[in-house]
Amino acid sequence: TIQGGGSGGIELEAGESFQIVNIEGSQVVDLWAFVQPGTQEFLSTENTRSCLQKLIPEVGDNLYSNRRRPILTISEDTSPGIHDMLLSACDIQRYELLGHVGYHKNCADNLTEAAKEIGHELKDIPSPFNIFERVEINQDGHLAIEPPLVKAGQHITLKATEALLVIMSACPMDIALTNGPDRRSKPVLVRKLNLSALGQQQG
Amino acid sequence: TIQGGGSGGIELEAGESFQIVNIEGSQVVDLWAFVQPGTQEFLSTENTRSCLQKLIPEVGDNLYSNRRRPILTISEDTSPGIHDMLLSACDIQRYELLGHVGYHKNCADNLTEAAKEIGHELKDIPSPFNIFERVEINQDGHLAIEPPLVKAGQHITLKATEALLVIMSACPMDIALTNGPDRRSKPVLVRKLNLSALGQQQG
Repeated sequence: TIQGGGSGGIELEAGESFQIVNIEGSQVVDLWAFVQPGTQEFLSTENTRSCLQKLIPEVGDNLYSNRRRPILTISEDTSPGIHDMLLSACDIQRYELLGHVGYHKNCADNLTEAAKEIGHELKDIPSPFNIFERVEINQDGHLAIEPPLVKAGQHITLKATEALLVIMSACPMDIALTNGPDRRSKPVLVRKLNLSALGQQQG
Repeated sequence: TIQGGGSGGIELEAGESFQIVNIEGSQVVDLWAFVQPGTQEFLSTENTRSCLQKLIPEVGDNLYSNRRRPILTISEDTSPGIHDMLLSACDIQRYELLGHVGYHKNCADNLTEAAKEIGHELKDIPSPFNIFERVEINQDGHLAIEPPLVKAGQHITLKATEALLVIMSACPMDIALTNGPDRRSKPVLVRKLNLSALGQQQG
């Protein structure tokens, strides 16, 4: 379980799958993936958009790295399928611009700290895959963050096609509507699936 | 003048402006900007989208860095104002996927080589600002590259708000419709504006 506003990482072998379960609903999860070993090759939102020719990936779609290689596949999604690849991770500057005084937890620091614990010093924050985040695009190209539509218990399942380090942040946003109208950061459950359990589920 | 398929870089002091002129029309220019000295802080398309809450920046808008700071301003645009911040730079893999056999010039290598000539070894290709590129978003979120609407002689003017290294690539794409139905990469003119010339223009 990743606490609301917290983060966690998992290591996956090629072929392994994991689920992100929205325990209470309305919680956004920022996700980054790094091909192992190292952090030089990582999930790239611009390459994913370019390869899929889509704004939002769907079940069956691959997610691509900065070297334009598929590294993850969305194998299942019981949420309404609304995710975001347009916006950057929230960071200290974002909370300052929103008027917050003093330190505020943020997805960028969550990534940096989780990576550091595992022994990686990140020099930059890759553009995140903001799972369950709802960003509306108006006719004139303006963007608006709206409350997520994901309900309690809904989940997304991702399969690694390479050995990966995946880091997730249960977005700490409590000012904008990112995590719903209650403006509260809620926990999410992340679990690796083993093949036999998946076999039972599918059978 | 940057030849069709070629690249070039300019160094700007804070406050300096430059123009990119589409000499023949229908030519896309991929642009990257790095705050000087070094290459650690650079133009970030995801932070620009997040700060502007827009897909495409317009005249008067700032462009933001990976540290969420304004580093460039669009001060003038005589083109139809259609640009792209969604797609990644074309690279060797892109041309291979399009069926090209052997090496093909590409924007990613153009950036890497131009940076190297100036003494910077880039470890990654930041998501580019694809000036004059037309990407249509369909109702279902699918993306399609369409021929640009920019005509011969039209230009965009950008003002640096920090000391910057700006690198541009006259996109070498000759397979997709990126550079128009003639599928030919054409030259563009890049010129620094000095303040007196700008004053005359405005007067």
